[in-house]
This record gives sequence, structure tokens and C-alpha cells, in this order.
Amino acid sequence: MPASYAYLGPEGTFTEVALRTLPEAATRELTPYVSVQSALDAVRVGEAEAAFVPIENSVEGGITTTLDELVAGTPLMIYREVLLSITFALLVRPGIKLSDIKTVTAHPAAQPQVRNWLKTHLPDAVWESAASNADGARLVQEGRYDAAFAGEFAAARYGLEALETGIHDAENAQTRFVLVGRPARPAAPTGADKTSVVLWQNDDHPGGLRDLLGEFATRGINLMLLQSRPTGAGIGNYCFCVDAEGHISDRRMAEALMGLKRICLQVRYLGSYPRADVRPGEVLTPFPGTSDEEFAGAADWVARCQDGRF
Amino acid sequence: MPASYAYLGPEGTFTEVALRTLPEAATRELTPYVSVQSALDAVRVGEAEAAFVPIENSVEGGITTTLDELVAGTPLMIYREVLLSITFALLVRPGIKLSDIKTVTAHPAAQPQVRNWLKTHLPDAVWESAASNADGARLVQEGRYDAAFAGEFAAARYGLEALETGIHDAENAQTRFVLVGRPARPAAPTGADKTSVVLWQNDDHPGGLRDLLGEFATRGINLMLLQSRPTGAGIGNYCFCVDAEGHISDRRMAEALMGLKRICLQVRYLGSYPRADVRPGEVLTPFPGTSDEEFAGAADWVARCQDGRF
Repeated sequence: MPASYAYLGPEGTFTEVALRTLPEAATRELTPYVSVQSALDAVRVGEAEAAFVPIENSVEGGITTTLDELVAGTPLMIYREVLLSITFALLVRPGIKLSDIKTVTAHPAAQPQVRNWLKTHLPDAVWESAASNADGARLVQEGRYDAAFAGEFAAARYGLEALETGIHDAENAQTRFVLVGRPARPAAPTGADKTSVVLWQNDDHPGGLRDLLGEFATRGINLMLLQSRPTGAGIGNYCFCVDAEGHISDRRMAEALMGLKRICLQVRYLGSYPRADVRPGEVLTPFPGTSDEEFAGAADWVARCQDGRF
Repeated sequence: MPASYAYLGPEGTFTEVALRTLPEAATRELTPYVSVQSALDAVRVGEAEAAFVPIENSVEGGITTTLDELVAGTPLMIYREVLLSITFALLVRPGIKLSDIKTVTAHPAAQPQVRNWLKTHLPDAVWESAASNADGARLVQEGRYDAAFAGEFAAARYGLEALETGIHDAENAQTRFVLVGRPARPAAPTGADKTSVVLWQNDDHPGGLRDLLGEFATRGINLMLLQSRPTGAGIGNYCFCVDAEGHISDRRMAEALMGLKRICLQVRYLGSYPRADVRPGEVLTPFPGTSDEEFAGAADWVARCQDGRF
């Protein structure tokens, strides 16, 4: 297997910065790809060992391009997640002042995070979308636009100055990234893990989705993400991307997934991996009555009853 | 109140075409706005009687800009919905052939709907995003790009030719639009209505969302949309935009909303309005045991029991 990670490029974006926080990235060749789709395809065809792409954003929610890629096509698996706080710098060519700025650019995903700042500080600036924040910085370097919103780290690469830093409309703006590979045995549980699945309902009746969520709730499993995605069969037809607390080797999670497998039209397992919002080494306590020991004890008790040994 | 409807402009887009299918649009002045936000703000400040904006798309799901505007800020209410089938035409300057096309443009929302077509027919064409599909057509007219994906109706307006029509990657590609005004008494039920609400959970515990959905399921109410949207309080903090079958004057829906009001941190009512996916005049039958008559009969029975008259 090639020791290479594909990532959503170009170089010098938040994605690359987030990827470099993973210790395993230091020993891999990191290759930028032009889109989430092409990065994941590189994994599917065996050109890369894994791909690193954004999947959720505290301002915009689930990143639909990534979710749709994981929902459809050859199955892939999530191995790791990274959380990165996102604040923007306003990058300009040296010498440009705020009052000189007539046009600004960035990736469209940056827009909701800088909208209020723009309204206050540059109400008349014209917004032009760029293919990426790094590409926006490049276009400013070339003189096509006056200013770009990008990570402060991009300034040096493009010979630009940060006129302003720390720009973020929403407090705690974070983006979640995932490392995605071909399906294999998930890593062992760490005590603070997350499991991702995609669920397709069997039919559409009152309580259908409530019943799916009940499979988790009944086993004391909290949900961290529920994102509906169109199935492509027309308005109102959705599947559900779910992140749930726990690992598939936890008995509560295994039982919940078995329940879903029984009642869903289709379940796609996307992996179990360490939670990035919990300090490494920290072990979370399951809700009362849902630990592996309690599940094992209850199974023993039923077996004894079935045996007439109660 | 000014007899004017704001809509997401510019002129000559799918939004305008959808708006003109509403009989009431014929008697109003229709004013294009540059963004969903500005169209809805026109309603909030009393500049327009109502605003007409896209809210859901069978390829991309909920349109987050619109949902986020309805979730936050001064409350607004949905009065009408329109479903429009979306297929694109490839518009070029007269005389241009498919083999001449090096650059194509359209609004980013068009991209997922034409991606496969592009891959097959114009694999080397460079994509450039436009502010709207109509704006893309204008840029082709000006010679900046070679071709634009837009509604076929835009060809005449910009002096272009449709080189290809009926382009749509997903079968049944539809967009749902809503007419949004200031809160008032909802229109009377038609027998085939939809109710939209936004729900904020009181706390985060296993089964929290299942319990919210249970308020609908218990009253035999089917859901048509469940879209999570970030609350802005960081990764993992979501509220839920829900479309449910029925009208707030149905007893089952009123009881479900009362239940939600009791257990949610906050409920925002977004209106009850006729469903566009049902033929006008058609009356839908509620699930057994959930008609107004059955609710009334059950309430009478409890009252009699409380009275000792059972």
C-alpha cells in the first residue's frame, strides 16, 4: 500500500494544517487533490492509503460533498478525526490599506464566517468566490482581487500581509476533518470513541425515524450528529448520516447496530474512531446500565433463565 | 402594506419562474434581490409584503442559507410552497459548437446537477462559479465564458442559444420554494397541508431527539423534512428544522406542538400551508385514530370519566 495521504488541496489551507496535527502524517507523503471527490477516489483506486477531508463545520453543519461521497459509491471507512478552530486573516499585497479594498475573495464556505465582519468593516466590497482560500490568496498576489480571507499561515506563502487576523463571526468556529481509508478492522476502542453510520429507512410512516433513533436511545447512546441527505429519489427522500458516542466493540453499540440492521432498508458502517473533542487517555463513563459488564451480566441472566437456573 | 413580493434574483432564474406559478404573484410587483438574506430582510423591515426563496432541493437537501435565516432573527412565517422541476440547458453564443467550449459557468448549486453530464460531454471544460445562473448567462453573452448552465428560458433574454436541453444528473430533480411573510394567522387548512417548525433541545441526553420526534409519531404525524442546523455554539450543537404533515388547526398537530413546547428549550413556529406535492382539492386521510373527530371523541370520553359519567 502506498504510504501517501491524499488531502483536499491546494497546499496552505486549513485542511493541510489540520492534517499535519496527526502524528502519522509525519511519515507519509501528503498529496493535495483538487476536490473531496478526487481525494476519496484516490483511496478507492488504491492511489493513496487514506484521504483527509473536511466533514463538519460549526457554522455550516455537515459538509454535504463529503457526506454524499461517503454515503454512495464504493464503501470507505473513517479512521481518525481532527478538530481545528477556524479564524480568518484578511490578506493583502504589502502597502494596501483597508480603505483601498474594493474586492475580496475566499472559498464560498468562508463567507458565512466573515459576513458580519465584512458588513461592518467593508460594507461596499464586492465578494468574488475562489476555488479555495489558498487560491484566493494567489489571486490577490496576482493582483486580480484586493484582499483574500484565508488562514494567517497563507500570508507568507503568497507574499501577502495580514491586515487583520482572528476574523470569525461565530465564537468557537471549528471544522471537523476525517481521515478516510478503505474498509478494514476498526482500531481498538480508546474509551472515548465515536461511530459513524448511514441509515436508510425501510418505509415512510409516522415514527419511522423515531424508531431508528430509538435503537440508540434504548442502549443509552448519545448522538453527536444527525444529518439528512437526499437519496436522489426526489424531494422528501432522505437517508441519515449519524455519529453516535461509542465504539462498535462496545456491547451497547453492537446491539444498537444489530437493531438498526434488522429494521433499516440499508445500514452503511463508516467506522469507529477516537473522539477529537476528548483529551487523549480520558475514558468516558457509559450511562447507567449500559456498560459492557452490565450487558454481559444481563446476557448471562437470560441464559440462566432459559436454562431453568434462575 | 406594499403589494410587492421580493424574490431571490436576478430576473430570469428558476426562482422567478417558480414565483410566477403562484396566482397571487400576478397582482403584485415582483422585485429581485441579490440574496436570500436581503429578500427576507425586505419583508422584516416592511419594504415587501412577502419574499420568495428556495428552501429545499432534491439533490442538495435543505438550502442552508434560507433555513438559517428562518431559524434566527425576527420571526417570519411560510405562507405557500412551490415545487419546480429543474433541468438545465447549456447556453452558448450563436454559432458556438460543443467542441469550442473551454469554460463553463453557473451558480455553484447547479454543479452537482450537471457534474456527470460535464464529465461525459465536456471532461476538459473549466468550471467557474457565477453569482446566479442568469448572471452566468450574462457573462457568456459578454464573452467572458464559453457556456452557461441555466434554465432554457434564459436563452432569449441574453441572446444565447441552447446547445443542449434537459440536462439533469438526478432524475426527478426538483427545488422547493417558499413564500415568506410576517407572522399572522395561518390560512385555513385545505386538507393537505404541511407545518414547519424549528426545535431546540432542552439538553443533550440519549434519546433527546427521539423524544422530540415521538411527539409527532405518537399523534400519527409523518415528517417530510428533518434538517439539523448548527446553533453556532460549536461542533455538535444543532437545532432541527422539521416539516410535518398537517395543519396547526388539526387537533393532532396542535397536541404535538403543545408537547414539543413543554419539552423543548425553544420552538419556533414557521407556519402551516398547502402542500405543493398534492393536487389542489385533494384531501388526505389521517392515520387511524388521529382524526379531529377521534381526538374530540377521546377528549369527551376523558371528560366524562373525570365527571364520573363513564
